[in-house]
Amino acid sequence: MARFVCFGEILLRLSAPVGELLLQTPSVRTHVGGAEANVAVSLAKFGHDARVVSALPDNALGHAARDELRRNGVDTNAVHFGAGRMGLYFLTPGAGRRAADIVYDRAQSAFASAPAFDWKSILNGADWLHVSGITPALNRATADAALNAMRAARATGVKVSFDANFRVKLWEARGDDPRPTLDAFFAEADLMFADARDIALVTGERASTPEDAARIAFARYPSLHRIAATERKVLSADDNEIGGVMVTRSSVTRTASHAVTGIVDRIGGGDAFAAGLLHGLANGGGDQQILDFAVGAAVLKHYIAGDFNLSTAGDVDFYLSQSGVDVRR
Amino acid sequence: MARFVCFGEILLRLSAPVGELLLQTPSVRTHVGGAEANVAVSLAKFGHDARVVSALPDNALGHAARDELRRNGVDTNAVHFGAGRMGLYFLTPGAGRRAADIVYDRAQSAFASAPAFDWKSILNGADWLHVSGITPALNRATADAALNAMRAARATGVKVSFDANFRVKLWEARGDDPRPTLDAFFAEADLMFADARDIALVTGERASTPEDAARIAFARYPSLHRIAATERKVLSADDNEIGGVMVTRSSVTRTASHAVTGIVDRIGGGDAFAAGLLHGLANGGGDQQILDFAVGAAVLKHYIAGDFNLSTAGDVDFYLSQSGVDVRR
Amino acid sequence: MARFVCFGEILLRLSAPVGELLLQTPSVRTHVGGAEANVAVSLAKFGHDARVVSALPDNALGHAARDELRRNGVDTNAVHFGAGRMGLYFLTPGAGRRAADIVYDRAQSAFASAPAFDWKSILNGADWLHVSGITPALNRATADAALNAMRAARATGVKVSFDANFRVKLWEARGDDPRPTLDAFFAEADLMFADARDIALVTGERASTPEDAARIAFARYPSLHRIAATERKVLSADDNEIGGVMVTRSSVTRTASHAVTGIVDRIGGGDAFAAGLLHGLANGGGDQQILDFAVGAAVLKHYIAGDFNLSTAGDVDFYLSQSGVDVRR
Amino acid sequence: MARFVCFGEILLRLSAPVGELLLQTPSVRTHVGGAEANVAVSLAKFGHDARVVSALPDNALGHAARDELRRNGVDTNAVHFGAGRMGLYFLTPGAGRRAADIVYDRAQSAFASAPAFDWKSILNGADWLHVSGITPALNRATADAALNAMRAARATGVKVSFDANFRVKLWEARGDDPRPTLDAFFAEADLMFADARDIALVTGERASTPEDAARIAFARYPSLHRIAATERKVLSADDNEIGGVMVTRSSVTRTASHAVTGIVDRIGGGDAFAAGLLHGLANGGGDQQILDFAVGAAVLKHYIAGDFNLSTAGDVDFYLSQSGVDVRR
Amino acid sequence: MARFVCFGEILLRLSAPVGELLLQTPSVRTHVGGAEANVAVSLAKFGHDARVVSALPDNALGHAARDELRRNGVDTNAVHFGAGRMGLYFLTPGAGRRAADIVYDRAQSAFASAPAFDWKSILNGADWLHVSGITPALNRATADAALNAMRAARATGVKVSFDANFRVKLWEARGDDPRPTLDAFFAEADLMFADARDIALVTGERASTPEDAARIAFARYPSLHRIAATERKVLSADDNEIGGVMVTRSSVTRTASHAVTGIVDRIGGGDAFAAGLLHGLANGGGDQQILDFAVGAAVLKHYIAGDFNLSTAGDVDFYLSQSGVDVRR
Amino acid sequence: MARFVCFGEILLRLSAPVGELLLQTPSVRTHVGGAEANVAVSLAKFGHDARVVSALPDNALGHAARDELRRNGVDTNAVHFGAGRMGLYFLTPGAGRRAADIVYDRAQSAFASAPAFDWKSILNGADWLHVSGITPALNRATADAALNAMRAARATGVKVSFDANFRVKLWEARGDDPRPTLDAFFAEADLMFADARDIALVTGERASTPEDAARIAFARYPSLHRIAATERKVLSADDNEIGGVMVTRSSVTRTASHAVTGIVDRIGGGDAFAAGLLHGLANGGGDQQILDFAVGAAVLKHYIAGDFNLSTAGDVDFYLSQSGVDVRR
Repeated sequence: MARFVCFGEILLRLSAPVGELLLQTPSVRTHVGGAEANVAVSLAKFGHDARVVSALPDNALGHAARDELRRNGVDTNAVHFGAGRMGLYFLTPGAGRRAADIVYDRAQSAFASAPAFDWKSILNGADWLHVSGITPALNRATADAALNAMRAARATGVKVSFDANFRVKLWEARGDDPRPTLDAFFAEADLMFADARDIALVTGERASTPEDAARIAFARYPSLHRIAATERKVLSADDNEIGGVMVTRSSVTRTASHAVTGIVDRIGGGDAFAAGLLHGLANGGGDQQILDFAVGAAVLKHYIAGDFNLSTAGDVDFYLSQSGVDVRR
Repeated sequence: MARFVCFGEILLRLSAPVGELLLQTPSVRTHVGGAEANVAVSLAKFGHDARVVSALPDNALGHAARDELRRNGVDTNAVHFGAGRMGLYFLTPGAGRRAADIVYDRAQSAFASAPAFDWKSILNGADWLHVSGITPALNRATADAALNAMRAARATGVKVSFDANFRVKLWEARGDDPRPTLDAFFAEADLMFADARDIALVTGERASTPEDAARIAFARYPSLHRIAATERKVLSADDNEIGGVMVTRSSVTRTASHAVTGIVDRIGGGDAFAAGLLHGLANGGGDQQILDFAVGAAVLKHYIAGDFNLSTAGDVDFYLSQSGVDVRR
Repeated sequence: MARFVCFGEILLRLSAPVGELLLQTPSVRTHVGGAEANVAVSLAKFGHDARVVSALPDNALGHAARDELRRNGVDTNAVHFGAGRMGLYFLTPGAGRRAADIVYDRAQSAFASAPAFDWKSILNGADWLHVSGITPALNRATADAALNAMRAARATGVKVSFDANFRVKLWEARGDDPRPTLDAFFAEADLMFADARDIALVTGERASTPEDAARIAFARYPSLHRIAATERKVLSADDNEIGGVMVTRSSVTRTASHAVTGIVDRIGGGDAFAAGLLHGLANGGGDQQILDFAVGAAVLKHYIAGDFNLSTAGDVDFYLSQSGVDVRR
Repeated sequence: MARFVCFGEILLRLSAPVGELLLQTPSVRTHVGGAEANVAVSLAKFGHDARVVSALPDNALGHAARDELRRNGVDTNAVHFGAGRMGLYFLTPGAGRRAADIVYDRAQSAFASAPAFDWKSILNGADWLHVSGITPALNRATADAALNAMRAARATGVKVSFDANFRVKLWEARGDDPRPTLDAFFAEADLMFADARDIALVTGERASTPEDAARIAFARYPSLHRIAATERKVLSADDNEIGGVMVTRSSVTRTASHAVTGIVDRIGGGDAFAAGLLHGLANGGGDQQILDFAVGAAVLKHYIAGDFNLSTAGDVDFYLSQSGVDVRR
Repeated sequence: MARFVCFGEILLRLSAPVGELLLQTPSVRTHVGGAEANVAVSLAKFGHDARVVSALPDNALGHAARDELRRNGVDTNAVHFGAGRMGLYFLTPGAGRRAADIVYDRAQSAFASAPAFDWKSILNGADWLHVSGITPALNRATADAALNAMRAARATGVKVSFDANFRVKLWEARGDDPRPTLDAFFAEADLMFADARDIALVTGERASTPEDAARIAFARYPSLHRIAATERKVLSADDNEIGGVMVTRSSVTRTASHAVTGIVDRIGGGDAFAAGLLHGLANGGGDQQILDFAVGAAVLKHYIAGDFNLSTAGDVDFYLSQSGVDVRR
Repeated sequence: MARFVCFGEILLRLSAPVGELLLQTPSVRTHVGGAEANVAVSLAKFGHDARVVSALPDNALGHAARDELRRNGVDTNAVHFGAGRMGLYFLTPGAGRRAADIVYDRAQSAFASAPAFDWKSILNGADWLHVSGITPALNRATADAALNAMRAARATGVKVSFDANFRVKLWEARGDDPRPTLDAFFAEADLMFADARDIALVTGERASTPEDAARIAFARYPSLHRIAATERKVLSADDNEIGGVMVTRSSVTRTASHAVTGIVDRIGGGDAFAAGLLHGLANGGGDQQILDFAVGAAVLKHYIAGDFNLSTAGDVDFYLSQSGVDVRR
């Protein structure tokens, strides 16, 4: 069991029923999510000590979001309650050949005001800090806050995991050039979740393979030790293929491609992968085993409603051990 | 049949299931509402030509809100689609001795940016403009927009109906003194929905009865011809008593008190009263008949889920004609 | 345990959710009902052998209606499947001061074509035949069919129970004078569920009390031995008061008035009363006990969704034995 | 933007929940539909002026059906409210290898009585009249009414679109030979949605390809300019392949076959195709672009619950531009 | 039409909503099931006289389970109500690559106490007795009861059908060696549902094909005339391939493999196969036709929520006659 | 803020929808509860440090129950996961004149096996231990476990709160005389929730008032300092009146009677009272204020679905400060 600290915004998702467009009927289903919270929940389900650092409004919405994390075993003592709104997003789930659609409504959130955190105390005893590229995409204050957190971690020997999670819409809304900011973030990471496109965006150097992209990144960011990414092929909204690739300064690991048919909920698949990989790194084991576990976790997430991967490590192992998936009785 | 123009913000309500606190379970029911939209829907159900003038975001939420008005027969051609969010409010419905609770989340809405409307064209052919005190409580721009609309109406012979709808939380959030603004609004109204407390707030003169309060208002606002209000006694969240009072410069009319037990949805009762009264004024008839109809409309609203009173004039007449309410078969 | 045969139309109810108008939202809840089927289900729940004789369409709707009776222990072997539609009715449940509303859609039903039944075989071994005034109100063929059934019963010593159930809308739709038809029905009954208004309608003689009305009926219909009725005061859609009165040629029995507050489903209350009374007559006991049981059954029906009274005799006895109604644990 | 008039019956669909047989559980979901209303809704969503001409019962069901069209932007001023029932159909949705099943319950509907319409006024300013083969299949009166409408359109220069929509069960129920009637309909169409089977049925001449069938039709019907059809391969209830073919007097156009896996709701796919094609013809563009759009529209309909294609033109364009369908965020 | 007696435990299933883990949200859907009850319901739907012999608790749960069988046409007169709990199982339905999961909670059930039944009277007039390997796996008393029933059947010329249904978890919980017990069961069967693995387990002789396994069984059990089994390939939780094989002492019959994609509910597929085969044997016809019907029945079960196959024989025939499965209208 | 330790069984409630009998339709709603867990949740909502000590099965049901406590802020580190079932109870909620009904299914639960707890460590730092009379009613082992806990508490200066919660059905099922056992429990309590009936049962001395009953108890149990109880009048299943009485060795305190109309969920009202009183004692203040708060908490519980009182102290204060309960906006 390791100790993880995850810093980022917690969102409330409001989604239309399956097969309907948003507000086609007057029912909305809610879920709590957010890239970093998703990672924290999955790590807690895997048996780790996972803490979320964030800010929420001091009202029924904020309390409910905190409660949902707590329910799943996440330590929420470092969640700040203050002014600002609850960050929301409205999801029309995709179906078959109809793509899912998201309306973000997260401006002016409690997290966007980036309250100060006592990182020294919060990171005390932690093994990893996990941050994602969504936080710097919100505004300058949240970007600074995340960078501060990463630097505080490095200063105290806590390893830093960074998921690039590049969202062009958020950067456009922010109206700023993502490159210098993300460059600073890349420089602080020990472990990075990023693909060749992300690395090309930030470094300006294009590569045709993950290995080549990793080589560019390793050359530029001396602290960086490991880069991982899923490789996803989207056949339809409910039929994907997912594999994983992980590159270190000395090795490349790949998994088989997993057929992900009959998808229930696509959101949070990448976060499940990140959590799976962090779990593997914390537990030890070979790179192949670590990466297989991470991809297995990502696959299972697609079959659970909501943003969170509620699978246990046992569930992932069971999935990986099976060719088919008959009833467990 | 008369023509009504209603100007104000359209909101999306997200409410918890009956008997639950907000997000106690992950289901949320949506309704479209807003004080002035509620009046417009009720007037359309009564057979009038009702138009809503408002601004909505150009996304799935805004379109759905427009569609819901259209569904109920309201003319939405003067609804502007533009930048900004959808105004939201989260409702925990009350039950018995537990009060309902509202979390407003309407800041930065499309309506709050107060786009310009071509009032001359919009008001062409209208009999009444209806505005409420919620619009000036949002910000200076919306206050100015509403005042402009009222003045444009008066200038072209369209009568002005104003529902004071004083909301202390909104004025506190705006951080401004409501009195001078509302004073200007009161001055433009032909018909005003206000009680003694509202009149005292704006004029600074306290009165112990609706009659006395009306006398103060009539003295101060020469254009004002008629003041009406419900008198509500709240016994529990689902048990109220409601009566109405209407004062003109020459008369006072009152209704019996109606026992409103087993309430389904309290929101929009006052708007149903306003629509009922406007319907009565448009259709003619004696003051007692008009006020009884308005109170009957308000009563029926309490038994329909959502912000809208979907009752027809026939439903209200049926209710008023009955001592009890057995199955209509 | 006695054997009852109930003859009449089986309907499918489609109702709006509580607190909503019909099709306000796109969810409809279905129930199976029909005055005589309701009586049969209640008798089966009380432990009797209850058979329904009816006609249903030979499609998924007809089969489902039959299955629902079967589920509740009713013998459906004498249900005929043939041409015609499923009789439907759409219900907007009432709430508080808003009355329930019904849209009937039962024309051209499989039952309306009145297929022939082998009454001799069907009534073999039965103690009672139960028929209601809804059947003659449908059309001449169904009226004849019901009269035939009653006469066949009398011919073989099966007692006849007739619930007047006068429905003015159905007779208007039929476009016929109900009086001569119902007069013939009244003449065949041993037991009749009717109030002074029903008796006045058919006999043309008005009476101010149940006793006087019964005297008129007993004078005119020599076979008639017993008349019973509920006395209902409708305070609101969910708050009624109910008592019962039963008159024989030699006695008058009354119950206390029961406060029926917080009603869940008003439909079928009269049928529950009829079944309760038939149960009492079959089981023996004094008139007061029989009538109290019938009213208790009617009361409990108001607290069960759907047309059927699913209470057992034990439930009714428990209710009658209690002043209040705390949790049974 | 063009103006379309669509004439036909509006139906209320009552469907079982996904994965259940009809009335397996007591929940039914309602949708409004009807071949021509479906076309009108889709055209309104594409930004056109779409009017439905129909007849509905003057009760809660008829009003709700009208409201649902209004909600989606369709002009319902030419909908007549009168006597008769609401046309219904009960749907058991298919699943996998279990076919969907429909129980029609539309006899004696308000539309079946074929009230007279003032076609001159209704068609004033219209570009297209759209009619389908369902209307003549109901009864002689509705067949005559539709033919009158088509002839009135031709007389005033409004183009006529006819969707053959041949339904053998309806013609059997009507008990009449469809051929002479449909022959008269085919003769009035400028644009026809029909496949080789439809054309063979009416003309008595069989053809093995759409091109040959079209040649037969063009030879026989001088007014006919364009014939289009989908080509559908049904692999399972939720897995189809769909392509389109369009033939003019001088050209043949085909689309690629689209894999339509994970279907949500199959009803209305053909109507979505018709609306897509009418949209393309109204907007101009090459035949390939028009037909691709029509097929794209048909594909997206399969992923939206209900009879209506609620996709915008932008949604169709987005679908056509994508190889896969990842989340739009 | 034949008469079948099915002896075994009736269970109440509580399942999570589709796409959710158990209790992820607070809604649970209930179904009634049990291997032998499932067979009985299917046989009743196919038009046979099917009786269930079982024991249930005399409370609301037990009554509801009985009612659900009755609803579907099963004779429940031989169901005993007595002490003990309702047997429960909690199901997390699988989805895609996530396997379904079951938590059994059936210990101490009313059935587990194995009340005595008057088999002579119960089996009077029956053609078949059907028993499954679940009953002996519960405890010694239930094993003895089932063996008694089989022997009573043989003694009176009622044929015996036995579905091996080997459940390792139940035998582990019982803490006993299944072999001697099952050997005694195998010895009493005329018809056995078992695959090579089951036969190897009991006989200790391994075979690589169904034919070889059958040869072993026929050699050992002289009363055995017919062995059948499905051959299932599990590609994912909602994508299987199913075929059937049936071996007699003189013949081997196989079906094509059926693609079972888009599965709704996997539970009860084997019981549907058994009922289909018993139906075929009772109705006569060739072995190929019988086995095809049985596999068709098993396939359709996968598309109906719950444990029961609610398909009629007509539905199975329709499925088998179709290459695809378009809407039946 | 004080520290509370609550020891007792955690149950899963499965309840029928409002207005329905159990399994009338196949939907069940789940809640987590248990007398002591209810107290713990309420104390956590009031801002205290509340820990539950219990035993749950190590499966999906047990984990979900733990998670629900965790969600509401309760410390679950001392919850033991082991063998045995999840304790269940099935609830048919009452309505109006129909009483609620409970089917317990808690035998053989994980808690019933009474695993050993390290009380010294668990109670370290605690202010209060709370136990209820349900635990000794289960079996001798749980009775001993609870008594051990109380004695361990007294030994280390932790105050003991005991809620008599006498359940005759449980004691009957246990088949033992409750008196000697409860006498030992009464002897360990500092604070006892009990009424005159409870005290008479255990002491054998009847008293006609709470004051007299308390005098008897104080005389017999030297450690006892305070006795409190609600006084409830049950008018109907959704209409009660509730007051409170609290007696110390020197004083008697009473509250006004609160009208509790329109009840949503009656379960857990007594536990909410207990938690409210413990909160008051922990926070200090006069007896009247403490008792008013406890009754206010009990009242609010009746308006929240589920066993838990999710009200905050602010909610209770708001309720107590209001004469009516209008919308909080």
